[in-house]
Amino acid sequence: MAPLHGLNFVASALRKSGRTFAVSSPVDGNLLDGKFQLARPIDAEEALAAAESAAGPFARMTGAERAAFLERVAEEILALGDALIERAAAETALPVARLTGERGRTVGQLRLFAAAAREGSWVDARIDRAQPDRQPLPRPDLRRMKLPLGPVVVFGSSNFPLAFSVAGGDTASALCTGNPVIVKAHRGHPGTSELVAGAIRSAVDACGVPSGVFSMLHGEGNVIGVQLVKDSRVKAVGFTGSRAGGRALMTAAAARPDPIPVFAEMSSCNPLFVLPEALATRSGTIAEGFRNSMTLGVGQFCTKPGILIAVEGESLARFRKELAAAVAAAAPAPMLTAEILREYDAHREALLGVAGVRVLAQAEAAADAAHSQAAAVVAETDAATFLTQPQCSEEVFGPCSLLVAVHDLAEMRAVARRLDGQLTATIHGTDADLEEAADLFELLAGQAGRLIVNGYPTGVEVCHAMQHGGPSPATSDSRFTSVGTAALERFIRPVCLQDMPDRLLPPALQNANPLGLERIVEGVRGRH
Amino acid sequence: MAPLHGLNFVASALRKSGRTFAVSSPVDGNLLDGKFQLARPIDAEEALAAAESAAGPFARMTGAERAAFLERVAEEILALGDALIERAAAETALPVARLTGERGRTVGQLRLFAAAAREGSWVDARIDRAQPDRQPLPRPDLRRMKLPLGPVVVFGSSNFPLAFSVAGGDTASALCTGNPVIVKAHRGHPGTSELVAGAIRSAVDACGVPSGVFSMLHGEGNVIGVQLVKDSRVKAVGFTGSRAGGRALMTAAAARPDPIPVFAEMSSCNPLFVLPEALATRSGTIAEGFRNSMTLGVGQFCTKPGILIAVEGESLARFRKELAAAVAAAAPAPMLTAEILREYDAHREALLGVAGVRVLAQAEAAADAAHSQAAAVVAETDAATFLTQPQCSEEVFGPCSLLVAVHDLAEMRAVARRLDGQLTATIHGTDADLEEAADLFELLAGQAGRLIVNGYPTGVEVCHAMQHGGPSPATSDSRFTSVGTAALERFIRPVCLQDMPDRLLPPALQNANPLGLERIVEGVRGRH
Repeated sequence: MAPLHGLNFVASALRKSGRTFAVSSPVDGNLLDGKFQLARPIDAEEALAAAESAAGPFARMTGAERAAFLERVAEEILALGDALIERAAAETALPVARLTGERGRTVGQLRLFAAAAREGSWVDARIDRAQPDRQPLPRPDLRRMKLPLGPVVVFGSSNFPLAFSVAGGDTASALCTGNPVIVKAHRGHPGTSELVAGAIRSAVDACGVPSGVFSMLHGEGNVIGVQLVKDSRVKAVGFTGSRAGGRALMTAAAARPDPIPVFAEMSSCNPLFVLPEALATRSGTIAEGFRNSMTLGVGQFCTKPGILIAVEGESLARFRKELAAAVAAAAPAPMLTAEILREYDAHREALLGVAGVRVLAQAEAAADAAHSQAAAVVAETDAATFLTQPQCSEEVFGPCSLLVAVHDLAEMRAVARRLDGQLTATIHGTDADLEEAADLFELLAGQAGRLIVNGYPTGVEVCHAMQHGGPSPATSDSRFTSVGTAALERFIRPVCLQDMPDRLLPPALQNANPLGLERIVEGVRGRH
Repeated sequence: MAPLHGLNFVASALRKSGRTFAVSSPVDGNLLDGKFQLARPIDAEEALAAAESAAGPFARMTGAERAAFLERVAEEILALGDALIERAAAETALPVARLTGERGRTVGQLRLFAAAAREGSWVDARIDRAQPDRQPLPRPDLRRMKLPLGPVVVFGSSNFPLAFSVAGGDTASALCTGNPVIVKAHRGHPGTSELVAGAIRSAVDACGVPSGVFSMLHGEGNVIGVQLVKDSRVKAVGFTGSRAGGRALMTAAAARPDPIPVFAEMSSCNPLFVLPEALATRSGTIAEGFRNSMTLGVGQFCTKPGILIAVEGESLARFRKELAAAVAAAAPAPMLTAEILREYDAHREALLGVAGVRVLAQAEAAADAAHSQAAAVVAETDAATFLTQPQCSEEVFGPCSLLVAVHDLAEMRAVARRLDGQLTATIHGTDADLEEAADLFELLAGQAGRLIVNGYPTGVEVCHAMQHGGPSPATSDSRFTSVGTAALERFIRPVCLQDMPDRLLPPALQNANPLGLERIVEGVRGRH
């Protein structure tokens, strides 16, 4: 593999700034190869100007052309081979198997969006024909379709260096629908970001895509990010990260003279409710499943189950022991970065410092802080403490969860009502439990984007029916998703054309339906 | 007709506060019947509590039940008969014919949303079935549908006392999809608002709808409005009004610990571009059509064409005379309220005060200010002034528009680029003109929600293909519309149910599709 150049991708140019940073291995603290250039405001400015110029030509490309581009991005990522996985593993300490899976997901996601671009019905074409003889007034011919918003700024995440970063779901959905993308790379994995950006750049060149369609900048703090979000040429933002980070971008976007939509995925405790009969009959299985889910990826999933709620009693006493044994056996593992470990330590200690919260279970093996390791912990509290101490419902990013022991189902519902908005909520129950839990389902449906029955929230399918987005603070707008084909709806807007001659209409709206799209004509949907 | 009681509608109760206001006829300044109670914070609090309690039961009602309710609202409004039209005419000075048409539109809108509620496919059901044998991991069963957001606050508009007020498009779309509504009545037509609120209240009682589903409050300034928007029980906002008013609500909503979506329709100049051959061949028709559109409803339409752009030359010289003659003949007419007239005077004078702007045409008959009359005015300027004076692209709410004379098509495009986001943009052209205007169409499609060819922007159809919403500052979020069936998308959010037993699923997601909905199953759409 060629050495990393560390430069910023500003459309077709590679830009050097002078000020650099390097990253260390989270595992041993040794510096990794590569010095990465911190983008200057002028680099952002050039990327913005290029994105603005590219927006029109990119929007005019056919769906088939954009599909070929996305597929080429997928191929170029695969062509990076082991080098990509090795660098990502070195930068994030995530296991090779997990990263290989994540690459598969990333490539699959690009291909799924390519298929959507090629098929084309996402434009949601609607036609209401003229009624010249209507009384008291004639009706004009009205045709509506969705167009790209324009340049989208995407912030790479820390915890998914491939699937939610440079060529992740936000980028794929923006490109699929014809929007140029400027990525602000995550500071934790700049080498991985460079490799993937290079793959996109190769695809841009190979497919004749306007060069301004893709730029990627390295930056520190939120200076470059806020510059991008405030710029009038930027029309939307995709973000996956912390609540504070997401909120800062939302505030910047809302304060613009022309506010723009921000889709920020921020914070979620993913509560898991264990109903009484399920606890009585399969506490051991749930203890193990919960431990596996909360420690997956060292607890660094946005869907990590951070709160488990169960009713006090003999079954819970047994479950406590089973969970303690399962957690004791969990091996400490390195977190993504030393900084994330420090934040994990701080948030975990803040939780454990709440009066009425105690440690229920912890990994037996000590975490080696020099190797950025975190050990799993389960804390415990009661409903009274949970309901009065806001700290208990704050997300702890890492392998720490909280058991809330409640006296009865009424108290369980009170805990559910106290929860903020969530990405997911899970219920474990036997058939009999579930039959009686209709009110709990209804309550949780109002608070979470996805409800899981007898499963675990980690593992987010990329498909049509996925919803990855929930009420605040889980995401900035619960009406949208960042995973699945519906994610492309974030970056498009409808335009209605009134009385435009057929030959001047975009093909999607012409009478003959030359693209063979599914359309709504006079209120009736079909390929007509 | 019974005398107006002037009370606030707080769920099933009518509340008196002690502090009242009255309204005068805009035509003669005489006080109209009725003393209206200014809602207190406690009234808003009660309305909020009632809305929160009603949200669950209302969401559980079937689509057919909600459809019957909306249809009953329509019937109750019609049953108010002439009294409604007379009161609305007295409060707004709008002509009886216009108000009768607006009532028809309001009732038609309610029935269209009733049909959508009954048909039910707006839930956008999606099913991806389990693949237990998938490698490397099984796929769970995933099913997604849209649910109501929860209580919605609707602000009545000044200029559509029926179609964009108490039972207007915002209320109809929120109720259709199962959201309780709290209306803040517009100060200008409290009697009309009371009559319509009474109609909704009657329908609530007749249809067994939970009483908290509808409340309506009178208020002054934005005190009650901001209290409502900041309250954690409110989940979305619909607003039609001024840019300052909309922006204040957006800011309040964005500053909440849990920001909520605001759909605000605020400000638009609706530019109309006349291409050279069209100007040469039918300047007289365009002059008359433009005059009619800009003076319709005394220029108090959000879609009033406020800017006309044409190329300097002989044809424009002729057009100036034709437009001057047409405008001279326009009869002054009373505006909605004395306050709106004052604002119109101020904004018009601010425009006319710009160096480089002059009066091109005005109504011959003097406006009678004592009768709140406004007279039509067309100002004129050149591209250089327009491009450098921001005041020229500010909306003037009322019968005042601005002609921008440009030197050539390049300068016309420069003017187009300078424009802020718009609800509409219009192009007049012959076939030959239009063939050459592809770049102008593309430019305007990026700036406006609706493009009109050889027509006028006033007149907004309520249908499937309508888009009434554009980039900032036209509306707060160009991805949504406030008119047409797509307007209901503003107030719903998707929820995904994972591995839920079929019998516990909502009917919309059950295998047998008992509601006969159009759904997307494994990515394929159909009634399956």
